[in-house]
Amino acid sequence: MGSADLQSVLERVRRRVTPDEDERTAMETVADRIIQATEEALADLPVEGDAVQVGSTARDTWMSGDRDVDVFVRFPTDLSRGELEAYGLEVGRNVLPDGREEYAEHPYVTGEVDGFDVDLVPCYRVKDASAIRSAVDRSPFHTSYLSARLDEAIGTEVRVTKRFLQGIGAYGSNLKTRGFSGYLTELLVLEYGEVEAVLEAAASWDPPVVLDPEDHGTETFDDTLVVIDPTDPTRNVAAVVTKSNVARVQHFARELLAEPSLSIFYPEPRTPLSPAGVRAAVARRETTPIAVVFETPDLVDDQLYPQLRRSLDGLERGLAEHDFDVLRSRTFADKESAVLLVELLAGTLPAIERHEGPPVAVETHARDFYETYVDTGQSGPFIEEDRYVLERERAVRHASEFIRDDLLSVSLGSHVESALEREYEVLVGSKIGQLSPRFGTELSRYFQPTPRD
Amino acid sequence: MGSADLQSVLERVRRRVTPDEDERTAMETVADRIIQATEEALADLPVEGDAVQVGSTARDTWMSGDRDVDVFVRFPTDLSRGELEAYGLEVGRNVLPDGREEYAEHPYVTGEVDGFDVDLVPCYRVKDASAIRSAVDRSPFHTSYLSARLDEAIGTEVRVTKRFLQGIGAYGSNLKTRGFSGYLTELLVLEYGEVEAVLEAAASWDPPVVLDPEDHGTETFDDTLVVIDPTDPTRNVAAVVTKSNVARVQHFARELLAEPSLSIFYPEPRTPLSPAGVRAAVARRETTPIAVVFETPDLVDDQLYPQLRRSLDGLERGLAEHDFDVLRSRTFADKESAVLLVELLAGTLPAIERHEGPPVAVETHARDFYETYVDTGQSGPFIEEDRYVLERERAVRHASEFIRDDLLSVSLGSHVESALEREYEVLVGSKIGQLSPRFGTELSRYFQPTPRD
Repeated sequence: MGSADLQSVLERVRRRVTPDEDERTAMETVADRIIQATEEALADLPVEGDAVQVGSTARDTWMSGDRDVDVFVRFPTDLSRGELEAYGLEVGRNVLPDGREEYAEHPYVTGEVDGFDVDLVPCYRVKDASAIRSAVDRSPFHTSYLSARLDEAIGTEVRVTKRFLQGIGAYGSNLKTRGFSGYLTELLVLEYGEVEAVLEAAASWDPPVVLDPEDHGTETFDDTLVVIDPTDPTRNVAAVVTKSNVARVQHFARELLAEPSLSIFYPEPRTPLSPAGVRAAVARRETTPIAVVFETPDLVDDQLYPQLRRSLDGLERGLAEHDFDVLRSRTFADKESAVLLVELLAGTLPAIERHEGPPVAVETHARDFYETYVDTGQSGPFIEEDRYVLERERAVRHASEFIRDDLLSVSLGSHVESALEREYEVLVGSKIGQLSPRFGTELSRYFQPTPRD
Repeated sequence: MGSADLQSVLERVRRRVTPDEDERTAMETVADRIIQATEEALADLPVEGDAVQVGSTARDTWMSGDRDVDVFVRFPTDLSRGELEAYGLEVGRNVLPDGREEYAEHPYVTGEVDGFDVDLVPCYRVKDASAIRSAVDRSPFHTSYLSARLDEAIGTEVRVTKRFLQGIGAYGSNLKTRGFSGYLTELLVLEYGEVEAVLEAAASWDPPVVLDPEDHGTETFDDTLVVIDPTDPTRNVAAVVTKSNVARVQHFARELLAEPSLSIFYPEPRTPLSPAGVRAAVARRETTPIAVVFETPDLVDDQLYPQLRRSLDGLERGLAEHDFDVLRSRTFADKESAVLLVELLAGTLPAIERHEGPPVAVETHARDFYETYVDTGQSGPFIEEDRYVLERERAVRHASEFIRDDLLSVSLGSHVESALEREYEVLVGSKIGQLSPRFGTELSRYFQPTPRD
């Protein structure tokens, strides 16, 4: 089978990702109604305000199938934060009487209208993006910057690029994915002009990559990818993007250019690994995987995943302090269960451990050390190079015991810690096969990893 | 039991180490006869020469029980090396008709006279120690420097200090021990004045320790202990002394001052560890000791031990390259058998190993890496941070197999390599108990180590 031609693959993606007339009309109808209703609600308030649609639906870079309408309600900057929130919620409740309140940087109202998910978010109308009071104030500036520069053709390239990023698992600036936001994708397409140029550029990136569309950046950043916000010279739009997501884009850009295939945009769903498959993988590897399973803390993903990662780091550091070598680790969760998975080269260590004492020359410290250990029945103290060395009984010989008895001693995310204080289960070795009915896909990604994972 | 008084302990040592009149007379009689016979033999030669007694018997710092008489035969510097050697051997054969030739820096003759071991060593009569042609030329200068400064009282302090160093295993500048030479001991006693002052100084040394009795040193040294040779401003007399021997002296000096005891000078002989004791130690430690046993190369100790250590280093590096963690190691030998002993935290590793590939950004290298491994059935390549990572099948899973199959691939001393090419045996785990009939003392020192070991 020869590979398909890149242009024909891209054309097929274009057709799939672009909303058709009916979908577009339905979206616009809802958006117009919401804007109008918002302006009417604003008219009843004792302060001036306006409504502005933001995000991909406002910029016509939304994907066929998307159902998100984001409307920002802007108030004057002389309002206090409390007034802003009160007026914002009042408008929201008027426009979306069946909606509910959520909390991001401010409280906002979210609800469903004709099958669309509508967010009504209050913000300040600041004079430019560098004067923002909170992150949400920035969105209208992004929309106005892009609206002036995007046309239908570029919008289509944006959609294809988003699909590419979705296909490889690198789309979304949420703290689970830590990938490319819609805004970042739009800026990349504006920078390079079309999908193919984005791919060619990414294939050859030599990080750190720094793009500054308005040539106005005032800060330097340590990040692998730096895209200076055209509306704010002090901000890196790509700050959240991990090294691995940048590398992933490079890898798949090269793959796509070398061998164009729709499957990069639309990969086959992963086949979950069966319990037997997990047990076979563990047996083949001869390592000791250990999973800590607990009830998922009731948090939004943007709070949950940083806590899970921090907890996994803490667990790895705790194991490392006791000399256990971690080959790899991963954390995953669904609504009910969360897992910290560590894979150890060996789950059991010898009965003794080396303990280096002070240099013999450091007289007081050295004498204390020697006197402390000389008659304890341990091996040593003896002298190696310039130091006392002791081979003492190892306190923690089994990683699983450490995790069962002392998991709460490691550094954990606070809500994870609370969940673990309530209850957790420890699965060792092939017993982690028990996780596969719930997490078979994650276990497949762990044990049969590709550049997508 | 209170501890004995230091002075009374030292007095008991003094009595034991000082030769009595009979012993001294016997020694002097032999020395005088040898000197006289040597001068007579020299008279028959067509060149001028003289005989000079060197070493501890010449300086009256020899230990009761010593049986070494060293006589140097000095020739003019205008002799070629070949003439020097020829004349030297001629004199030697005349004086010690039943002796045999040995080779150090020059050939020399060694033989027994009335129960004493006599060495007759040819050297050049240079005008000062900095003009020496070989190391042996230096000895007469040492003797003449010390003879002018030692008296009977100081000689006794030297003897006690030597016994202290012998008792703790730090005496002798040979390349097995890498400890304190007689000359170095004499210089230390001259420096500090008496045994107790040597001990007090050593107890508080803060290395690097630099002593320069003649205040004429011209070089700087990296060594832990530096004693500039009074007869040669460019030489550190303590260059061969290891860090651990310096630390050992510090440790036992403190012990002796804190709790004076004859046992530091005259320790109980070590009880060899029985085969059962070795097996129990291995079981208790839960480590994997592995011993390589082979025929001892036919070398003098000063060549053998550096080769054994170099080979042990090579073995440890080879094991480390294959991810085996060495807890401790040791080499020992007798006339027939030599052993390289390594003790591993684990003798077996998992079936897979982490293999880091290039950063994904390094395009050509990265593509090659990915293409090479993508369809090999290994775990990966996947992306971690900015790199490809592969978990591939580990080539070497058992340290014992590596040692059986590939020991000759590691860096070895040349004569050790030849011996191993002929034959070697590998003992793993409790099987090293088989070594204890021959090396029980060494195994006791290994498994029950004290600061003396």
